[in-house]
Amino acid sequence: MKLWDKGFSTDKKIDLFTVGNDRELDLVLAKYDVIGSLAHAKMLHEIGLLSKSEMSAVERELGGIQKSIKEGTFLIEDSFEDVHSKVEFLLTEKLGDTGKKIHTARSRNDQVLVDMHLYLKDELDEIKNLVEEFFDLLMKLANDYQSVLLPGYTHFQVAMPSSFGMWFSAYAESLIDDMYMLNAAFKVVNQNPLGSAAGYGSSFPIDRESTTRSLGFGTLKYNSVAAQMSRGKAEKIVSFSLSSLAGTLAKFAYDICLYMSQNFGFVSFPDALTTGSSIMPHKKNPDVFELIRGKCNKIQALPYELTLITNNLPSGYHRDFQLLKEGLMPALQNTKACLEMFIFSLKEIKVKKDVVDAEMYDYLFSVEEVNALVQNGTPFRDAYKIIGQKIENGAFRPNRKIKHTHIGSIGNLALGEIRKKMEETLNR
Amino acid sequence: MKLWDKGFSTDKKIDLFTVGNDRELDLVLAKYDVIGSLAHAKMLHEIGLLSKSEMSAVERELGGIQKSIKEGTFLIEDSFEDVHSKVEFLLTEKLGDTGKKIHTARSRNDQVLVDMHLYLKDELDEIKNLVEEFFDLLMKLANDYQSVLLPGYTHFQVAMPSSFGMWFSAYAESLIDDMYMLNAAFKVVNQNPLGSAAGYGSSFPIDRESTTRSLGFGTLKYNSVAAQMSRGKAEKIVSFSLSSLAGTLAKFAYDICLYMSQNFGFVSFPDALTTGSSIMPHKKNPDVFELIRGKCNKIQALPYELTLITNNLPSGYHRDFQLLKEGLMPALQNTKACLEMFIFSLKEIKVKKDVVDAEMYDYLFSVEEVNALVQNGTPFRDAYKIIGQKIENGAFRPNRKIKHTHIGSIGNLALGEIRKKMEETLNR
Amino acid sequence: MKLWDKGFSTDKKIDLFTVGNDRELDLVLAKYDVIGSLAHAKMLHEIGLLSKSEMSAVERELGGIQKSIKEGTFLIEDSFEDVHSKVEFLLTEKLGDTGKKIHTARSRNDQVLVDMHLYLKDELDEIKNLVEEFFDLLMKLANDYQSVLLPGYTHFQVAMPSSFGMWFSAYAESLIDDMYMLNAAFKVVNQNPLGSAAGYGSSFPIDRESTTRSLGFGTLKYNSVAAQMSRGKAEKIVSFSLSSLAGTLAKFAYDICLYMSQNFGFVSFPDALTTGSSIMPHKKNPDVFELIRGKCNKIQALPYELTLITNNLPSGYHRDFQLLKEGLMPALQNTKACLEMFIFSLKEIKVKKDVVDAEMYDYLFSVEEVNALVQNGTPFRDAYKIIGQKIENGAFRPNRKIKHTHIGSIGNLALGEIRKKMEETLNR
Amino acid sequence: MKLWDKGFSTDKKIDLFTVGNDRELDLVLAKYDVIGSLAHAKMLHEIGLLSKSEMSAVERELGGIQKSIKEGTFLIEDSFEDVHSKVEFLLTEKLGDTGKKIHTARSRNDQVLVDMHLYLKDELDEIKNLVEEFFDLLMKLANDYQSVLLPGYTHFQVAMPSSFGMWFSAYAESLIDDMYMLNAAFKVVNQNPLGSAAGYGSSFPIDRESTTRSLGFGTLKYNSVAAQMSRGKAEKIVSFSLSSLAGTLAKFAYDICLYMSQNFGFVSFPDALTTGSSIMPHKKNPDVFELIRGKCNKIQALPYELTLITNNLPSGYHRDFQLLKEGLMPALQNTKACLEMFIFSLKEIKVKKDVVDAEMYDYLFSVEEVNALVQNGTPFRDAYKIIGQKIENGAFRPNRKIKHTHIGSIGNLALGEIRKKMEETLNR
Repeated sequence: MKLWDKGFSTDKKIDLFTVGNDRELDLVLAKYDVIGSLAHAKMLHEIGLLSKSEMSAVERELGGIQKSIKEGTFLIEDSFEDVHSKVEFLLTEKLGDTGKKIHTARSRNDQVLVDMHLYLKDELDEIKNLVEEFFDLLMKLANDYQSVLLPGYTHFQVAMPSSFGMWFSAYAESLIDDMYMLNAAFKVVNQNPLGSAAGYGSSFPIDRESTTRSLGFGTLKYNSVAAQMSRGKAEKIVSFSLSSLAGTLAKFAYDICLYMSQNFGFVSFPDALTTGSSIMPHKKNPDVFELIRGKCNKIQALPYELTLITNNLPSGYHRDFQLLKEGLMPALQNTKACLEMFIFSLKEIKVKKDVVDAEMYDYLFSVEEVNALVQNGTPFRDAYKIIGQKIENGAFRPNRKIKHTHIGSIGNLALGEIRKKMEETLNR
Repeated sequence: MKLWDKGFSTDKKIDLFTVGNDRELDLVLAKYDVIGSLAHAKMLHEIGLLSKSEMSAVERELGGIQKSIKEGTFLIEDSFEDVHSKVEFLLTEKLGDTGKKIHTARSRNDQVLVDMHLYLKDELDEIKNLVEEFFDLLMKLANDYQSVLLPGYTHFQVAMPSSFGMWFSAYAESLIDDMYMLNAAFKVVNQNPLGSAAGYGSSFPIDRESTTRSLGFGTLKYNSVAAQMSRGKAEKIVSFSLSSLAGTLAKFAYDICLYMSQNFGFVSFPDALTTGSSIMPHKKNPDVFELIRGKCNKIQALPYELTLITNNLPSGYHRDFQLLKEGLMPALQNTKACLEMFIFSLKEIKVKKDVVDAEMYDYLFSVEEVNALVQNGTPFRDAYKIIGQKIENGAFRPNRKIKHTHIGSIGNLALGEIRKKMEETLNR
Repeated sequence: MKLWDKGFSTDKKIDLFTVGNDRELDLVLAKYDVIGSLAHAKMLHEIGLLSKSEMSAVERELGGIQKSIKEGTFLIEDSFEDVHSKVEFLLTEKLGDTGKKIHTARSRNDQVLVDMHLYLKDELDEIKNLVEEFFDLLMKLANDYQSVLLPGYTHFQVAMPSSFGMWFSAYAESLIDDMYMLNAAFKVVNQNPLGSAAGYGSSFPIDRESTTRSLGFGTLKYNSVAAQMSRGKAEKIVSFSLSSLAGTLAKFAYDICLYMSQNFGFVSFPDALTTGSSIMPHKKNPDVFELIRGKCNKIQALPYELTLITNNLPSGYHRDFQLLKEGLMPALQNTKACLEMFIFSLKEIKVKKDVVDAEMYDYLFSVEEVNALVQNGTPFRDAYKIIGQKIENGAFRPNRKIKHTHIGSIGNLALGEIRKKMEETLNR
Repeated sequence: MKLWDKGFSTDKKIDLFTVGNDRELDLVLAKYDVIGSLAHAKMLHEIGLLSKSEMSAVERELGGIQKSIKEGTFLIEDSFEDVHSKVEFLLTEKLGDTGKKIHTARSRNDQVLVDMHLYLKDELDEIKNLVEEFFDLLMKLANDYQSVLLPGYTHFQVAMPSSFGMWFSAYAESLIDDMYMLNAAFKVVNQNPLGSAAGYGSSFPIDRESTTRSLGFGTLKYNSVAAQMSRGKAEKIVSFSLSSLAGTLAKFAYDICLYMSQNFGFVSFPDALTTGSSIMPHKKNPDVFELIRGKCNKIQALPYELTLITNNLPSGYHRDFQLLKEGLMPALQNTKACLEMFIFSLKEIKVKKDVVDAEMYDYLFSVEEVNALVQNGTPFRDAYKIIGQKIENGAFRPNRKIKHTHIGSIGNLALGEIRKKMEETLNR
């Protein structure tokens, strides 16, 4: 059954091409479709287009469908184009004309919009919770290892002393920027698009404020054309926020892969978290972190996919928008999987305690010597030249005792302040 | 003069390759470099590394440099690598050892970071102001033309009645989503990175809260490594916000180009805003809007450029970051230029008042007929079939009088609510 | 069973995360894995590492596996990590030690490389065949409709006369450029990577020229490190060629969607090839072409995904490369589906014969008038001004009889020359 | 003066916005514009639209303009929109009506197309020459250092023995793939687009085969619409080929930056090729290679920019295309600069001769031991377990004498075969 079936025969091949993997993806959206339909039915009753008994019947049937979704028995067979037609079919089968009435004053486009907005709100919430959990773990590790030094690099060159405490809490604080983005994306999807019909509103006296309240949206996307335009735009903005987060995770995963190399050896993981090689018996590879990196880098390509699908299409619905889901939905799942895997494995990290004692890291401490001269009155540029000369002549001897006291330095990680900044992002 | 000159000869070719167009771009940043140096000097005095008279001298000289920047007489000659070395040279020339001291407890990376953060804050503010101005214009046009109907399209097919009021205010409301993104980007750059030195802090007892206050930042990027990591990440996040806005502008420009076509003829502009053809004497081309569209589409490629430059680089500074500016800075200017040009030209738009009277648009009103049947008790799917049959038989006659009353529909644009939502974004 | 199992327990969660959807994708590669193993076994025999009877046994078993793949009974159960371990398991189960020997002098990375190269060769061949078929159809349509005029647009403005013949054969000729790209991609994957082991060759005296001949590769990727580096690079280059083709198809699909709009009405399709609306009974939407456009635009994002996954990874294998398949393999299928659907539906196109007779298109013929003056001796710029003046005064009257004779113009489509150019691309 | 000036006043602001940096970029194209005009004039004479004396006059004046371009005295003042209008102005100033005639049967779009095609042919030729030079250098280094071992990595883990010879010649062979792409791009731009006028041909009996011969194109882009469609498509295809090459260069530069780190120390460069730090006196940073990497990564974003500018624009010229040059032209220059800088600096590379002697690299040789067991009759999987056990127990002792003989392995670099493969690409 096709909603738009007008009795014309339609070639099977076309059906396959046009429906694609929608049925599979729509199973995830089914829950939200029912929630949206419930709010819509309730509102239709309020404005007199569904009688009380009709509404009760619809509510009862939708409740049953929601139950079957939860239990995993809900299916979208090949004879149905999408979740919307399946739900309407079930209602009509049971309720006859009343079931048909549910489609009054809305279109499939409308339904997809509201389903996606509800789905994205939930997903963003879950992601934010995982980010918070990851943040907490990083802060704990930063606290645990705040006194263990680590070489700081610039240009891949040994540069200045850093510490595990700095390293862990740097990523923690960096996640706050990603939270700003996730919060902005949340605001974008927290606007009720329901009621825009085919993108131009309708002549039914629907009460969009009622559905906004029922569905728990923060506000409305008022203008029906604007509501329709959020198709694609909302997905794109969510993908920007995922990209931002994915960039942070990929960078951290890269650090770990590098630091696990024999040439660095800063961190290691239990065998259960590494993998072997089919031909080299000595290998303990950081596959988990390479895959986090790779998956996060793939996520960073998502905005370009969504942009290319939607760009240079003038206002009004285009069928191309159907293809937005198939990139975005796995990216959301992968974002969560990467966060979960990171949390799971990072708990097991083993930190090498005496890294910087190796001779290779002597020069880490050269700036300390320059600064000591400066603090005794030598102008900076002169001090720089004096130590530079010593290094050239092989006369430089490092002093590994360092005392960094300013806020945000090795000796003063400002973990409390960072935590406070993160907490502020959680309130909105 | 090179800051890092250690007496080695450096090949001219390398100089050209490594410095690139930095001098030109740095002229824009010069103002912020001086502001950052002033705050740094003040703080060095507060912690006892600059005497009162030294600080006064530095303040005086920096004031003079700032004046020359404002007057356009400040230059970065080929003998200087960047703005930082030029400013240091000027100070040292005038103040000797005192001038050299200004570089105490900071690095060029530090300076670039703070310059860029200050610059981006200003640019985002300007862009937000222009968005607001554009929003106001769209809202005014929506109000002026709220009763002029326009065909609404889906799939490029004549679909349902829309109006100029809907169209203008849809873009106005859509800009609010972009404001959420611009606000998130602003939060990211509103964190003081100064004091991270080469990315790992230093042993000087600097007071980063003092510079945060002097420079007007909302908070600190506390962790020095996190501060350094914002190099690239801040730029990328700003580019996401520009992309979001550019997508909205490009879409609107596309609509206009299409609607100016003889095949639509919905809007027109005075001759001064169109251009001709070198071989077709009848042409009045929408070049301004095509270039807005093209420039905004180019801006949407920026995040990918910035991502590719920074991605898969482990933590710590890499010289690659120097290349971020040359894509971002023109994109900011182009964003502003597109907004200005849009505001400038949209004021002149001429709207065709009787578009929908043409026979071609009869079917726009088919849903109205369906809905009328529904409101008289026919189930939606049956009403849909009845009108579908009439259309097939050529028996359909439209009624062009429509009455849309729900919030966000043609007859109820909710301009007040939309304005209120925009105003809320301006407070943060 | 994991190839690299060393007796350590491995967490289930990690397994899920690291294996991903490899088993599903590997089913497609199974055929090539067996072909590669056959060539490898034959070579191992030639260099004395497999006896004649061992080789015969291996050949027999691999033949059986290939048969089960063809018949669809070959499975990769959850207990196997990938196709390679499943095939090795089957061989070892049947042949004991002989089965184990097949892995001599190669690694999984090696196997993936050769599987992908063989697979990509086949896919590119299929795509090239479909491009040729599409080309033939376009050329036939160009020939059929060479005398039917069509408005030519610039800037979306009515510009100069074109024709359906021009339009169809323009896309035909444009496909030749895509063929150049597909041919280049084919050359890249037509180099045998087998024998690079883990990416650095091995101490076994393998005969890579033998496997090159057996597998039908045009040449070798000689250097083992270069062979390993083609992981990712080959995929990226193939994706560039797909992108190029997809750009052409998307543009043509866009033209069709636009020309099907009531505002143009240049082409139409039978009802079976259009779809309806859930709320608008009059709609016949060009969903097929919108989805071709959308899918082709998505394909154009693929190079960025593959670039982001592989970029800034230094030489040597990284697990990230495993993620290349999951974007590329569906893109190849979608490319073929779009070509097939285009061929299928374009055969049914109905062309409007009298488009340019409408008054709206009068100005199409203004340049003809200018040129007529020029051919009678008026300098071009003066002629341009004279006709421009006429248009301004409303005195312009078009002459719809046009005579374009130069090669590549309406009256001289050069179909033979274009066909010859395409044929040259098929030979290489 | 504007070509399309019809007496309307045009706002200054619009002019600035629409002309952009075209005048600057057009200076580079000026040479090709004159060459194109010469061929066009010659052809106009052949078909009788220019008399012999008119043609001679035009040739003389164009010769003078070409001379001034070569000498750097040719300017495009602010009063001219682009190079085309400036050249036409100069001709008209000198030759009156004859000068005006040069624009007969062509449009600016036509001129831009032919200018760009000629320019891109030259640029691709230069790039191919530089690639060849770089290839030769890599092959020489491979030959010089073929016996110096290097650790081979997988997953950033010490894996198997490689060599400097392998490393250098791997990049050499990898460049051959890029040559396939550059050759494909060259074929695309080696088709004469001149004569398409505004994209639909014209009624003048022009002889496009004559201009094809004069301009040295390999063939014609026959169909005028196809010729116009190559605007954007040709640029995109060239950018794909640049991206491919840039990916190879960036990867090699990344290797070098990493190998220069104190943690690897495989290669070094003279001081003149490294740069210092403003605060760390011991630093010798690989800025040149970081900037090659960064610039090449930026180039890899170019296809996305060009795709976004051109995508989803239906057939026919759009002004957006004007923006293609400003991304592509610097990318071509940067590609050449990166190749030149690579050639310049790689000549100075210093290779560490005894890298693999360090204990850290013992496991490099574990596969050799496995293979030795295999060659003595132990099945591979059993040998793998035996050596794996030894490593677990700390009983593994490496034998650093290795003998790799197969083609493409350490002991058999196949430099002759690789060179032959490269030479074949140079012939086409």
